[in-house]
Amino acid sequence: MDKLKVYGDSRSGNCYKLKLLFSELKISYEWHEVDILAGDTRTPEFLAMNPNGKIPLLSLPDGRHLAESNAILCYVADGGDFFGHDAFSRAEILQWMFFEQYSHEPYIATSRFIIRYLGSPVERQADLVQKQKSGYAALRVMEQRLEHYEFLVDDKFSIADIALYAYTHVADEGGFDLQGYPAIRGWIDRIRSRPGHISMELK
Amino acid sequence: MDKLKVYGDSRSGNCYKLKLLFSELKISYEWHEVDILAGDTRTPEFLAMNPNGKIPLLSLPDGRHLAESNAILCYVADGGDFFGHDAFSRAEILQWMFFEQYSHEPYIATSRFIIRYLGSPVERQADLVQKQKSGYAALRVMEQRLEHYEFLVDDKFSIADIALYAYTHVADEGGFDLQGYPAIRGWIDRIRSRPGHISMELK
Repeated sequence: MDKLKVYGDSRSGNCYKLKLLFSELKISYEWHEVDILAGDTRTPEFLAMNPNGKIPLLSLPDGRHLAESNAILCYVADGGDFFGHDAFSRAEILQWMFFEQYSHEPYIATSRFIIRYLGSPVERQADLVQKQKSGYAALRVMEQRLEHYEFLVDDKFSIADIALYAYTHVADEGGFDLQGYPAIRGWIDRIRSRPGHISMELK
Repeated sequence: MDKLKVYGDSRSGNCYKLKLLFSELKISYEWHEVDILAGDTRTPEFLAMNPNGKIPLLSLPDGRHLAESNAILCYVADGGDFFGHDAFSRAEILQWMFFEQYSHEPYIATSRFIIRYLGSPVERQADLVQKQKSGYAALRVMEQRLEHYEFLVDDKFSIADIALYAYTHVADEGGFDLQGYPAIRGWIDRIRSRPGHISMELK
């Protein structure tokens, strides 16, 4: 059978989520590098696959496509140990994944993008200050949870941990200091030391 | 058995999503009105239920809580006709729900909030202009899909439609003109005319 294909930018945490899940599950796949900054997601060819013009994008052997990093995690993990054992645990995993996309990624990932890839331009400084405030609020919610649990849901590693690990472990690149967040740092270490782990830098 | 409880603000589209799903499924529940603007979601009592301080919040008879509107939709619809028939259709439904929270709600719902509830203050005008641009981009993605399908996924009404209907049908209150989006307007009419429909104004 043909392999699953992922269209992604290696610098993107949203794309790294899929690398991490595939590594944990020992699923082989093809990676197609897409350069966001060069406009690769705005070409007619790419927009035909994902009209929303975003990566990552999963391409199935039968030609169907699936967008949104967290929806792809759910698809690949469906029915397995990383996506809960009953309706409530699946919903709690989804709760953390929606939290990630609404209350975490727009602040922590976007700060990293502005600082690391746009070179922290003067006209984005006020925006960065606002994002720091909201990003730390998200980190406090995570810290409070991880003070009591090894992993976000049911004390078991799941795709919720993958979704939130992606940008939290590089939060320093967005100007966030995790020194005051020992529970988050312990959780990062636990995820990093799993046998199936793969780092963001490597494919 | 005790009923499910929903903590919500009747003016919020995110909260309305749950009213609409419960109405479609004929599930009875208790509604607890929470006033965001009065700070009801920042009290110690509320934060003990949802540390992220957001509504809607679902409270189960056994005392567990679930946050994030779209995660609650998934929980309530789990195993039923409104949440797909296989792993791929569930993932496509989730794709649209993540699209809603990342690419639609922050622009269309937030514009409505700034205009209708904050009275469109001068210092938010530049922000509003930016949100109009991104909001129309989201509407174009929906229009393109709905030109070919009656409902967003598999031509069948699902929680993806509920999630996106919530703020799309009141997009005009956020300054968005749907005149140029006939496919979206047809989809709104189809949802509104379903027997299980309930309008946003009524409980």
